[in-house]
Amino acid sequence: MASLLGLSGRRFQVVYRICGTLDEVRNRAREISVEQTVEFPEALLPAGDIRDQLVGHIESITPLDESRHEVAISYAVETAGFEFTQLLNVIFGNTSMQPGIRVERIVMPEVLLQAFSGPRFGCRGLRDYLGVTQRPLLCTALKPMGLSATELAELAYTLALGGIDIIKDDHGLADQPFAPFHERVARCAEAVSRANRITGLKCIYAPNVSGCGEETLRRAYSARQLGAGALLIAPGLVSFGMMQQIASDERIGLPILGHPALLGSFAVHPDYGISHYTIFGQLMRLAGADATIFPNYGGRFSFSQKACKAIAQAASEPMGRLRSIFPAPAGGMTIERVPEMRTVYGNDVILLIGGGLHTHSPDLLANCREFRRLVEHGL
Amino acid sequence: MASLLGLSGRRFQVVYRICGTLDEVRNRAREISVEQTVEFPEALLPAGDIRDQLVGHIESITPLDESRHEVAISYAVETAGFEFTQLLNVIFGNTSMQPGIRVERIVMPEVLLQAFSGPRFGCRGLRDYLGVTQRPLLCTALKPMGLSATELAELAYTLALGGIDIIKDDHGLADQPFAPFHERVARCAEAVSRANRITGLKCIYAPNVSGCGEETLRRAYSARQLGAGALLIAPGLVSFGMMQQIASDERIGLPILGHPALLGSFAVHPDYGISHYTIFGQLMRLAGADATIFPNYGGRFSFSQKACKAIAQAASEPMGRLRSIFPAPAGGMTIERVPEMRTVYGNDVILLIGGGLHTHSPDLLANCREFRRLVEHGL
Repeated sequence: MASLLGLSGRRFQVVYRICGTLDEVRNRAREISVEQTVEFPEALLPAGDIRDQLVGHIESITPLDESRHEVAISYAVETAGFEFTQLLNVIFGNTSMQPGIRVERIVMPEVLLQAFSGPRFGCRGLRDYLGVTQRPLLCTALKPMGLSATELAELAYTLALGGIDIIKDDHGLADQPFAPFHERVARCAEAVSRANRITGLKCIYAPNVSGCGEETLRRAYSARQLGAGALLIAPGLVSFGMMQQIASDERIGLPILGHPALLGSFAVHPDYGISHYTIFGQLMRLAGADATIFPNYGGRFSFSQKACKAIAQAASEPMGRLRSIFPAPAGGMTIERVPEMRTVYGNDVILLIGGGLHTHSPDLLANCREFRRLVEHGL
Repeated sequence: MASLLGLSGRRFQVVYRICGTLDEVRNRAREISVEQTVEFPEALLPAGDIRDQLVGHIESITPLDESRHEVAISYAVETAGFEFTQLLNVIFGNTSMQPGIRVERIVMPEVLLQAFSGPRFGCRGLRDYLGVTQRPLLCTALKPMGLSATELAELAYTLALGGIDIIKDDHGLADQPFAPFHERVARCAEAVSRANRITGLKCIYAPNVSGCGEETLRRAYSARQLGAGALLIAPGLVSFGMMQQIASDERIGLPILGHPALLGSFAVHPDYGISHYTIFGQLMRLAGADATIFPNYGGRFSFSQKACKAIAQAASEPMGRLRSIFPAPAGGMTIERVPEMRTVYGNDVILLIGGGLHTHSPDLLANCREFRRLVEHGL
């Protein structure tokens, strides 16, 4: 049996919040340290590195209240194989099937972070790309599903004329018969480009390229060729690993907006899953999103202001050499809330208003201009 | 605005369980029917098909108790674009971010099911492939992580000699430095083949090919070339769409064991996410797994016997022309429990015993033979 595995001795840490009394949590922590690594009866583990280094180390147990504790477990960086998929597997693969355990945050040493190139653009790169130095970026979505490619392109034209920076597909636009992917992307990219020639601004179109397996990659290549300026990707549907591959592909080379579809199930119960901070912040950024879209507090969804601020924090705080990214709060936002959102998120934010841009007044073009005026105001 | 979208009129149904009083649930159901489709202010929807057909239809609301209701919402099949990723998006994309809503089951018409080829082998195909006509299949895992490729191959050799049908990688084996993917797969496939020449049996090796983006596909091709007899894929890590692509790729053509890593977060809280029945049963099968691995009741995990039986039901009940697949209960199973598991699951089951095969007695070969004897007994 192996004993000298040539391990670096470097470890990354996962901080779990675990329900239970101190005794219960001690046991659960021990089980996690085995489950997430060797998944083997401890008594039969060979002496040496497997037993001493590969099994997770419980670094600390801190009571939060009588029934919940924060537990830090460290893992040898080699267990994660320096790839995103296996990193996620070590963090929470099998333990996702246990009740009352939540990943609060991940602490990664430089040697592990170096395996990930992260966002290609990040905040600064996306600002340079759009030529917007300081103010929040304006974003909206093409909808409703059911419009034809021509109708969506007309809509995109108006939105671009109105001064929106980023026009994304609604995440429900895929390759449906009413607006097939290629036709939609070609028409919308052309419409935005036509509007840019009139305004002199740089608005970009971000089609949704989420598809099955390699189809995501093919759509990303097509989008680039058809004149898209960015991509919308839902890693909950296509995997974080696929988003990472697209982010690091030179032949695509477009900014990525990470969409939260299906990822809600990880974060929405406070004692289960993976925290907002980690899934919409740390993991989105590590896998190469240049912006992370999430439902803002006080909209159609239930995220708290605290959770939203945690996402924004993970998007911008130091993380090795990985670029900071834009938080993009959305989900029932309105023009009226722009001043408040600027106060809460500051200037490094993408303000994403979808349906609310249509309800502000019957004049969509005027609504866009009002949105832009509010964002430029006071800078 | 469009009004004649050329819709077929065919719809699929998602049955949600929603927390709240009847009035609350009526409102929540209405919100879901909009959120999962047009995601647009209803008052502004154009008259015609978008408003009448694309918005979800609330088909029924049935009280379960005072605070929970079962709600059936139907969606036009065209919203799902006849592709897995978008189907999942319509089922639960944004609604995953709402608390207290759970997908209980999906009811798909033939026209939608026909878009999915599903499992290549299924129960009967896998039985033919292995030459096992009637009894449960025996499965175990190579572990612990940290063993070298040579050591894992030695282990595989012993397990194959002992009469195991399927030897899978532990799902934590990826491409780590201690047992790199290519070396591991080559050595283990060779070891199993060598044992088969001695026993005259057909044992197969199922390496874990889960990786980032296209890397999963590359590993699947390599595995086939290196002599693997099946594949282990974790769709929670690599996406259901990627598993589906591999299942339908003629050049790979191997049985797939679907692993539940990271999918636990969908099922583990009874009022949130996606039911065991749907995620480990319906979706695994629809995306082409020939067997669905899940933690058995009474082991290291918390799944109830009822939940496990629901998975087994979804694996085998009629589902258009899709082949039925094997349930593969695992997670702390022991040889002692084989008779009980046969009673609960019947013969169309893969009995997956990992660590328990090592603890039964110090003689691993004898333990495998005892496992096999128990399974063959009484047929």
